[in-house]
Amino acid sequence: MLELYHSGLTTCSKQVRHCLREKGLPYKNRYVELWRYENISPDYLKLNPNGVVPTLVHDGTPIINSFCINEYIEDAFPEPPLRPADLKERARMRYWAWTADEIHLQLARLTHARMLQQSVNELSPEDQKIMLDHTPVPDKRERWRVLTKGGYSTEQLDAALDNVMFVFGRMEQEISRRGPWLAGATFSLGDISMLAIVHRISEIHPGRLDRSAFPHLMGWWDRNMARPAAQFVYATGTDEVPKRPPKKSIAGIFEFRL
Amino acid sequence: MLELYHSGLTTCSKQVRHCLREKGLPYKNRYVELWRYENISPDYLKLNPNGVVPTLVHDGTPIINSFCINEYIEDAFPEPPLRPADLKERARMRYWAWTADEIHLQLARLTHARMLQQSVNELSPEDQKIMLDHTPVPDKRERWRVLTKGGYSTEQLDAALDNVMFVFGRMEQEISRRGPWLAGATFSLGDISMLAIVHRISEIHPGRLDRSAFPHLMGWWDRNMARPAAQFVYATGTDEVPKRPPKKSIAGIFEFRL
Repeated sequence: MLELYHSGLTTCSKQVRHCLREKGLPYKNRYVELWRYENISPDYLKLNPNGVVPTLVHDGTPIINSFCINEYIEDAFPEPPLRPADLKERARMRYWAWTADEIHLQLARLTHARMLQQSVNELSPEDQKIMLDHTPVPDKRERWRVLTKGGYSTEQLDAALDNVMFVFGRMEQEISRRGPWLAGATFSLGDISMLAIVHRISEIHPGRLDRSAFPHLMGWWDRNMARPAAQFVYATGTDEVPKRPPKKSIAGIFEFRL
Repeated sequence: MLELYHSGLTTCSKQVRHCLREKGLPYKNRYVELWRYENISPDYLKLNPNGVVPTLVHDGTPIINSFCINEYIEDAFPEPPLRPADLKERARMRYWAWTADEIHLQLARLTHARMLQQSVNELSPEDQKIMLDHTPVPDKRERWRVLTKGGYSTEQLDAALDNVMFVFGRMEQEISRRGPWLAGATFSLGDISMLAIVHRISEIHPGRLDRSAFPHLMGWWDRNMARPAAQFVYATGTDEVPKRPPKKSIAGIFEFRL
């Protein structure tokens, strides 16, 4: 029995939801409301001591980190394969899955500025303190602390976007040389991981996804988004991507159970 | 035929050298002199467009990124296995290999402050410019630029060390619950990856590896360092860890071939 604790259209949640959907695997949908900081509630921290989504629970055992979860799904449920049979393609698949994690930190800055800063501003000082006190990973706590102090500078955000665009340039080159997929001939976990990154930029900096600058990357984007699994994963208004609930104090999360 | 481009005791080089040595695989030793910035020479960038070590070349095909290289070695040369057969152990192996990459950025700050700042200070302004102009990844270029401006603040370095110590706390907990290895019963790529991180702290902040604070982590360290492969990899003065060569201008790297 599979249960997925996730938060809909957050980057890492998208990666695992997409993998499960490509496999056609049924799972229990456990939506974690980040807006109520359920991810740092005591019950969730028992599943995932880093306090991040997603977590896959398979027959009672939690598996954490989106890249590790997707490799686990591939190990446990190998059909249809999302790891290329050719070992050099497989190494490229892992390179791109790794690159998605590597660039995630830069992407998070951009995401926080555009999608989270306002929500952190609206927290009461008491709720900000609860949030900071219960965020277990020091680096993540520091990033949240920056948001409580007004957020990143324009210079920092420009630098983050430069890094993302450098990776997109590398994707353009790789797809033009080897395509149609990032690893080569085979659609793989590497495509799933990077699609979540490109999708976020399509939400917050759509002008950067320029079809004349990135013809091969955008062809790859079209091929990905045409897949039925991607159409479900990236849709809004489904059970897995509910509307944002009304704002409430986050103090209550330490009383209710997930 | 395997060729390993590496730089001895740098973190990612250690990880791949250790994996190859545990497998008993012969390979050509291609030492890349970071002190002469050979990693950003035009010839090396053809192998590894990110300009970082290591790169494994297998029958002419370059494989990049230490984690991807080690998984590739395991795929191509499965004996003796360094990936647990149990799939949940295997997911934990990947979690720790991933964690080594995640914490590497923080570790790099500490390493740069203790082991590289002086060497960057001693570069001529012309050589600093060559180095910055030829470092391809924007985030890495920015980190080098910080070094040319005097380096990180004490506050930034303390924060980096806090993050590393948080991970060591998690290792202590995991080994105490499941040991003797990070994934559980089986020595794996997860141990190899994290050993390189702990080893660096043993070089630059040895007081933090406190046997009373981390009894299980230090038991794990002893078990790792007793392995013949680790004894070779972490030794100095071998062909793979040559003494630092005399300082020269780095301009010459754009003339000679690796």
